[in-house]
Amino acid sequence: MTIAISTRFDFTLDSPTDVILQFEAAAIPEQEILSARTVLTCGDACARVPAHEAIGERVLVSTQGRFEVAYDARVDVKRLTPDLAGLSQLAPHDLPGDPLEYLLDSRYCPADRLQSFAEDEFGGTSGGDRALAIRDWIAKHFTYEPGSSTATTTALDTFVERRGICRDYAHVLITLARASTIPARYVSCFAPGVTPPDFHAVAEVFLADETTPGGGAWYILDATGMAEPHETVKIGVGRDAADVSFLTSFGSSQFGDKTVTVTRED
Amino acid sequence: MTIAISTRFDFTLDSPTDVILQFEAAAIPEQEILSARTVLTCGDACARVPAHEAIGERVLVSTQGRFEVAYDARVDVKRLTPDLAGLSQLAPHDLPGDPLEYLLDSRYCPADRLQSFAEDEFGGTSGGDRALAIRDWIAKHFTYEPGSSTATTTALDTFVERRGICRDYAHVLITLARASTIPARYVSCFAPGVTPPDFHAVAEVFLADETTPGGGAWYILDATGMAEPHETVKIGVGRDAADVSFLTSFGSSQFGDKTVTVTRED
Amino acid sequence: MTIAISTRFDFTLDSPTDVILQFEAAAIPEQEILSARTVLTCGDACARVPAHEAIGERVLVSTQGRFEVAYDARVDVKRLTPDLAGLSQLAPHDLPGDPLEYLLDSRYCPADRLQSFAEDEFGGTSGGDRALAIRDWIAKHFTYEPGSSTATTTALDTFVERRGICRDYAHVLITLARASTIPARYVSCFAPGVTPPDFHAVAEVFLADETTPGGGAWYILDATGMAEPHETVKIGVGRDAADVSFLTSFGSSQFGDKTVTVTRED
Amino acid sequence: MTIAISTRFDFTLDSPTDVILQFEAAAIPEQEILSARTVLTCGDACARVPAHEAIGERVLVSTQGRFEVAYDARVDVKRLTPDLAGLSQLAPHDLPGDPLEYLLDSRYCPADRLQSFAEDEFGGTSGGDRALAIRDWIAKHFTYEPGSSTATTTALDTFVERRGICRDYAHVLITLARASTIPARYVSCFAPGVTPPDFHAVAEVFLADETTPGGGAWYILDATGMAEPHETVKIGVGRDAADVSFLTSFGSSQFGDKTVTVTRED
Repeated sequence: MTIAISTRFDFTLDSPTDVILQFEAAAIPEQEILSARTVLTCGDACARVPAHEAIGERVLVSTQGRFEVAYDARVDVKRLTPDLAGLSQLAPHDLPGDPLEYLLDSRYCPADRLQSFAEDEFGGTSGGDRALAIRDWIAKHFTYEPGSSTATTTALDTFVERRGICRDYAHVLITLARASTIPARYVSCFAPGVTPPDFHAVAEVFLADETTPGGGAWYILDATGMAEPHETVKIGVGRDAADVSFLTSFGSSQFGDKTVTVTRED
Repeated sequence: MTIAISTRFDFTLDSPTDVILQFEAAAIPEQEILSARTVLTCGDACARVPAHEAIGERVLVSTQGRFEVAYDARVDVKRLTPDLAGLSQLAPHDLPGDPLEYLLDSRYCPADRLQSFAEDEFGGTSGGDRALAIRDWIAKHFTYEPGSSTATTTALDTFVERRGICRDYAHVLITLARASTIPARYVSCFAPGVTPPDFHAVAEVFLADETTPGGGAWYILDATGMAEPHETVKIGVGRDAADVSFLTSFGSSQFGDKTVTVTRED
Repeated sequence: MTIAISTRFDFTLDSPTDVILQFEAAAIPEQEILSARTVLTCGDACARVPAHEAIGERVLVSTQGRFEVAYDARVDVKRLTPDLAGLSQLAPHDLPGDPLEYLLDSRYCPADRLQSFAEDEFGGTSGGDRALAIRDWIAKHFTYEPGSSTATTTALDTFVERRGICRDYAHVLITLARASTIPARYVSCFAPGVTPPDFHAVAEVFLADETTPGGGAWYILDATGMAEPHETVKIGVGRDAADVSFLTSFGSSQFGDKTVTVTRED
Repeated sequence: MTIAISTRFDFTLDSPTDVILQFEAAAIPEQEILSARTVLTCGDACARVPAHEAIGERVLVSTQGRFEVAYDARVDVKRLTPDLAGLSQLAPHDLPGDPLEYLLDSRYCPADRLQSFAEDEFGGTSGGDRALAIRDWIAKHFTYEPGSSTATTTALDTFVERRGICRDYAHVLITLARASTIPARYVSCFAPGVTPPDFHAVAEVFLADETTPGGGAWYILDATGMAEPHETVKIGVGRDAADVSFLTSFGSSQFGDKTVTVTRED
């Protein structure tokens, strides 16, 4: 499936400020970057470093005044979309070191506090069945409501208020998966079908990989139901939105306009 | 400086539960493990994996009932204790990829929310001077009060209430450093002089390394004033306490007794 | 039903501090104080004022050092215990002014944030049926666990963690009732059957009084199941625990011992 | 000083919902209502009850669809503006019962948590001097920034983030006053000079009334510096914004337009 992406956004910094940007499709085996073009208003210092888990890149900018970003790309997504039903989960002591970190609490996903709820609500299930049960429970009980959350909204806030946007849905899914001893991480992405069109976010859970004895793999889950794994273009991954925000500013910034267009080519 | 460590603790799990332990001195260049002995009640599965940043190890246990840990070690700490005054900080776009992650928000250290305060209170300083000013501000305004905080206490709670234990002091220091665009991480450790004797925690900040042009290094800072860098035995590092708790339990656990003895040998 | 009460507690104040105490059975029509004796270590200023809604009294003390409270009483509880099933709720515009205040958010009961959940979970019911459904839902999903909450724990914390003590159970019940547009208040009380023996707390909801056309009345509900309305001796009422804590200290205090004995005489 | 007020606002309710409105100048001795006209889209039930402390009125509406409010009034403010400097505070045991309640924690003003800070920062002062010191501290360290806070922002959030609007400034002032054992309440009001023009909020503190031995009185304080006491038209008072919001909705509502015009006539 080939996905065409086009995004424009700008922001203004009153004083010289450092900014981290992460907004480009990641070059990883499961998705091939057919073409890509990034244009930045980059007057001052501008660096690139590998992002979390070396998936995608962070653009580091130190600048002042108005800053514009334009990005266009075509990406061929080759991701398989296995059925999670019946997949087993790996006990923590069987996990590789890397996924283990995704069991721990993070800024927006304090999983320790939802252990009792997770056991009470999803106690009879495990592995892929549990992950699907969590996704379905969120989809059933939550309302997608742009404007109902802010940059400080945590998974607990959303759990209480039962509403939010893709970021919040992903945070709750991740938190309940971790509370179920399933490693889970946050994926910022592009996907067609997102309404209103915007950067999107989904969750990934680490479950047994049936093709490799003892092995595991990451599987995409979207509680909003808007993105399909075989059409999802990953930008980056992290413990939660704090790690892969498309704009992290170390100072005061005013956000301007933003347009995101994502279309299927085939 | 040779440090002798001895700790015993136990906990009880009502049902089969996965637990992560991290309680041993890390084998890293700046501290040599002269001798070490760990004895665990390890009836069931028990694995070891490298911990965060490959500093120290996590012990992964899946067990039930009473579990005892005994650990004795002698460690030669060879860490230098440079003066931080005058050290410059590296702009984010000059940072290597790894320290960059320590600018981002984590579970207990939501630095974005303290940016205004940090600028208001410490605005005239930067680099090592700023880190020292933050440490001194905490030392002046906070009260060390065992029992005043819990496992869910964040740096913001402590910032409001002005009291806590080593964990809380470290979280506030880390948060204010990050809010000042200085990478900062959490270090769990052993140190003589900790009163009452217990596992200890300090912060590390990433500043310019004057011996390497363009390079940087991690420097220990303890806002409680109880630990000296040249006597501090690191167990592990992380974004905050969520990454290097000596006991992380994925289920209900009752903590029993704990003794920690740390003495100087020379 | 005659209830015998005996309580002793003490606390220590390092420096001269103002303290509010509220620990005595309230003299109100539904419960007759047969006998009562209060002994206080009252060296300095000591005043009494009516408490919230003029139910019970607050003892105002300004003192330093160790302070002891001894209280013994026999109370004849004459409260009726009507069945709430089928009772209707009064729309806000039909409420008297006083109960109306108990629809609003308070320190530990931010009801606005649970409106979506309340509608989602209890949407098909109203009035007494809804209040009973809320009580039963809490009783089914929460675990009574002394030590699991603190003085800063809100109804939202408890809603997330699904555990707590009588105070927390009452806060969640009150919050969900208010989120259902049913006025609800907090009642501190004595009751036999409380395990472990301690001051107790229940909720009261304001529903139609079938004996008075257009009128309403307060009805006791205890989600912990430990107290029966006809055996419950009210100390005071408030919007939540902030209004009727048995000890409110305007400065640092160390709590000492506490014993509470409540027995049925008939 | 005669103040002319004109406000228009509207909101839309998707389904039949109960709403509390409080938006009119209160008829109290210190301000005379010269003329007033309220026009409501009041298709369904509409009641009026006295508001908190019998200051002003609450309009109770149960309705659906679009609802418009128009209010015009001329008010003669006769409030004195005494200098708070040097006024003493009343110890809790010398307070009347009513102001005592304004020492306790409320939804947005959890004063217990700022006791240490209040003592640390303002320890050398008391009474009116302390109230003024708190007001000046807020004015110096906080930034007035419309859009930086939401309906769930507490005084602790604002204390951490150092920015907000009139509501947030008042909440912090109230919280720090209570943490200093000075009763403090929230006043919703109209005032000329508010920029951008809107409903306004200030704090009131209860201090000794020098004209009455042993007596006390409420004094207006505005940390934003935008309103003068002799020009401030009170709408209502409460423990915090939860008690005197101009619009409290027990269900989902979409707010529409709002204009507020307040001018001096003399």
